[in-house]
Amino acid sequence: MDCIFCKIIKGEIPSYKIYEDNFVYAFLDIASDYYGHTIVIPKVHSTNVLDIESKSYSELMLAIKKISKHYVNDCNFTGVNIFNNSGLDAEQSVMHTHFHIVPRVSGDGYKINPASVKQNFDLNKIANELKLN
Amino acid sequence: MDCIFCKIIKGEIPSYKIYEDNFVYAFLDIASDYYGHTIVIPKVHSTNVLDIESKSYSELMLAIKKISKHYVNDCNFTGVNIFNNSGLDAEQSVMHTHFHIVPRVSGDGYKINPASVKQNFDLNKIANELKLN
Repeated sequence: MDCIFCKIIKGEIPSYKIYEDNFVYAFLDIASDYYGHTIVIPKVHSTNVLDIESKSYSELMLAIKKISKHYVNDCNFTGVNIFNNSGLDAEQSVMHTHFHIVPRVSGDGYKINPASVKQNFDLNKIANELKLN
Repeated sequence: MDCIFCKIIKGEIPSYKIYEDNFVYAFLDIASDYYGHTIVIPKVHSTNVLDIESKSYSELMLAIKKISKHYVNDCNFTGVNIFNNSGLDAEQSVMHTHFHIVPRVSGDGYKINPASVKQNFDLNKIANELKLN
């Protein structure tokens, strides 16, 4: 396996560790683009949210909540952005499931929320196409 | 309670429903900025990931996975972006826990991943400050 995140979990590639338990490993993103930008990954390899196994997924989500609360309760942040890209067409870069956490504080000047300009979509038509029964 | 998402759950405000179960409701974001932009919310009110109760959170995350897989397996998308803003300082607009899903397809021209330019952060120092033991 040539997965860079699997190598980080095994310690074959060094990382700035934030948290670890039996199922999950978290470390600072070396992109170093936002203060405290954290990557949270399952120890069992999966590609993304579309193929991750249930137990890995639930443990991953629990760790994300735990780290988020830690950042706000213990580290003087006041909010977090949590995001995941699943699929090459969704701008996923490393093909091992990972969620990003960016801890936030008033006046940090970051713009993470990707809300964009309104389009003239026919929402009724789209809802009929996409609904899950 | 004057929460707009609680009113959507109760049907007091109309919405373009995508999915509903006992714990979760999902509908199209009327921001209408990305094709299929979906909001997924827990039926029990909470503010965000920092205060959501365990059962609501796990059911919410299961629904997010289910809807994401539906978009790729049944609706001709090839990926999804999943994101959450928790806290006013994290650009949260509606104070009821919600995750966004943006289904993606090759050539849609969207830019959702907020990766930014590299800063000269001292990652070792930050990891020591933020680590969760």
